[in-house]
Amino acid sequence: MNASIRIGILGHGNLGRGVERALGHNPDMHLAGIFTRRDPTSITPLDAATPVLPAAALLPARDDIDVLILCGGSRNDLPRQTPNNAAHYHVVDSFDTHARIPEHFAAVDAAARASGHVALIAGGWDPGLFSLQRVLAEAVLPDGQSSTFWGRGLSQGHSDAIRRVPGVAGGVQYTLPSEEAMAQVRAGARAPLDPHQQHERECFVVLEAGADPDAVREAIVTMPDYFAPYRTRVHFISAEELAREHAAMPHGGFVLRSGSTSVAHAHLIEYRLQLDSNPEFTASVLVACARAVHRLACAGERGAKTLFDVPPGLLSRHSPEALRRHCL
Amino acid sequence: MNASIRIGILGHGNLGRGVERALGHNPDMHLAGIFTRRDPTSITPLDAATPVLPAAALLPARDDIDVLILCGGSRNDLPRQTPNNAAHYHVVDSFDTHARIPEHFAAVDAAARASGHVALIAGGWDPGLFSLQRVLAEAVLPDGQSSTFWGRGLSQGHSDAIRRVPGVAGGVQYTLPSEEAMAQVRAGARAPLDPHQQHERECFVVLEAGADPDAVREAIVTMPDYFAPYRTRVHFISAEELAREHAAMPHGGFVLRSGSTSVAHAHLIEYRLQLDSNPEFTASVLVACARAVHRLACAGERGAKTLFDVPPGLLSRHSPEALRRHCL
Repeated sequence: MNASIRIGILGHGNLGRGVERALGHNPDMHLAGIFTRRDPTSITPLDAATPVLPAAALLPARDDIDVLILCGGSRNDLPRQTPNNAAHYHVVDSFDTHARIPEHFAAVDAAARASGHVALIAGGWDPGLFSLQRVLAEAVLPDGQSSTFWGRGLSQGHSDAIRRVPGVAGGVQYTLPSEEAMAQVRAGARAPLDPHQQHERECFVVLEAGADPDAVREAIVTMPDYFAPYRTRVHFISAEELAREHAAMPHGGFVLRSGSTSVAHAHLIEYRLQLDSNPEFTASVLVACARAVHRLACAGERGAKTLFDVPPGLLSRHSPEALRRHCL
Repeated sequence: MNASIRIGILGHGNLGRGVERALGHNPDMHLAGIFTRRDPTSITPLDAATPVLPAAALLPARDDIDVLILCGGSRNDLPRQTPNNAAHYHVVDSFDTHARIPEHFAAVDAAARASGHVALIAGGWDPGLFSLQRVLAEAVLPDGQSSTFWGRGLSQGHSDAIRRVPGVAGGVQYTLPSEEAMAQVRAGARAPLDPHQQHERECFVVLEAGADPDAVREAIVTMPDYFAPYRTRVHFISAEELAREHAAMPHGGFVLRSGSTSVAHAHLIEYRLQLDSNPEFTASVLVACARAVHRLACAGERGAKTLFDVPPGLLSRHSPEALRRHCL
């Protein structure tokens, strides 16, 4: 019987709360502590016995945490938090600024190697599970074309853009995959599509008192980059409906690869996620990653990792023998 | 620049020919030789320069093959071929008798460890990619239910059963996923389904001269185990149509997992393969596995492996840096 893996959480927003919940579904792990930059007394953990401590308590390294899951944001938190904490802990993050992954990896790798830790970056579903599917599909169908479609899902960035439009009191934006573009890809079309050919945008908007709906709609659908290139629908709703129907954070999408193994034979690989809660699902992936990090660390591995470097069986709480018997 | 990986093929049926084709799509590998138990002069390789040699030439071990891909059958060939050849080569097989995987793994592991080789078993798509998806999905959604649906695909075993019915001159059987059962699973139903609730069977049958179609249909749809529990449709066609329309070996299927991260939030993970040619696609997976085996061997690994043990990046011909930059 192995000892339960002791998990720390840094940051208690939506993602951190998701990790807290996810640990309840993983009996080989438990929550050793929540670390926050807010006032610890302002946080009510799911289990009242969980210690809630100031982030400063993380340093110097504590020996009662096996893996620290970093639940901050990619823009302002993780670029410093992940290397800083990899100097003291085995860590997992969900860094998702695609363009900056190489430099983040390098910074984290240097810190983790210098201190003898394992640090898995870019966990989650995209980057994360979707990335893994892209690598697998390309490896088995090298003569082919991959496409990623996102949605139906709530986009924070586009929702923020709507809320900055004059006359808008509130609103959310959902990204939807274009059914027409998906049908083309599934049928084997290999011409790469632009994001605006692959996706549509649907907005639910609450107007300020006296605002002109036509002007607001026009301001949204013509907004460069965010909406102008896309098929965009705008629905005006009440503040009550916004609060009642649009408080969840659904997301998901599709990774598709069509490819050929010979002139006569084409194939399609399709991976789909349909998520009621983006942060809770992302958190569940991070928890599985933390298990793998712990095992890699116990096996003597060091440095930065991504899901590409992790034997998939290490993500599962079941033994290799059980996985071979029940899943192969 | 790494040297091209030298691949040997043992067995030149549909799967071996698929490996031969797949190597043409993988510029970091090449075919060093085809080994056969038939008369080597009866085999025409795609590239006339490829050596075709008797299987006996495999022993003693040759030093001009990095990985040997075993393309025999799971019933009669691989239980002996894989351990025997793992004593001399790094090997890959597509052993697919689910119930006997633990004993096959143990026999191969013993041979490979004793001789210092890496042997990946149960490559392909099921077992193989589907198995990997089951492990990944269960690891990230531990509170959930997994289902596998096969089809639309040609089933050799069921086609053979049809052809044994008196009055049948020829025929094929396709397994189809039940759309109704798939809809239930996608909607989050967790009650496990029996295979006959998940699948339907469609038969295309050529009658012998003078055979009674009603008697043949009745004999098929009432056949215990094979057809009786299933919704089965039987179509009578001409020998010409059978040859023209049903010579391909399509297959595929779905791995689904629905699960929850909290009372309010459920999620769906869906993986789908739609394959024009089962053997060519399986062969493509084996070739990617051979690359990973070569890299594991170069890194000093030894013993039997499955896809659960392979860092996914090792399946790709691209570098870790390129994968992080382009796929994460």
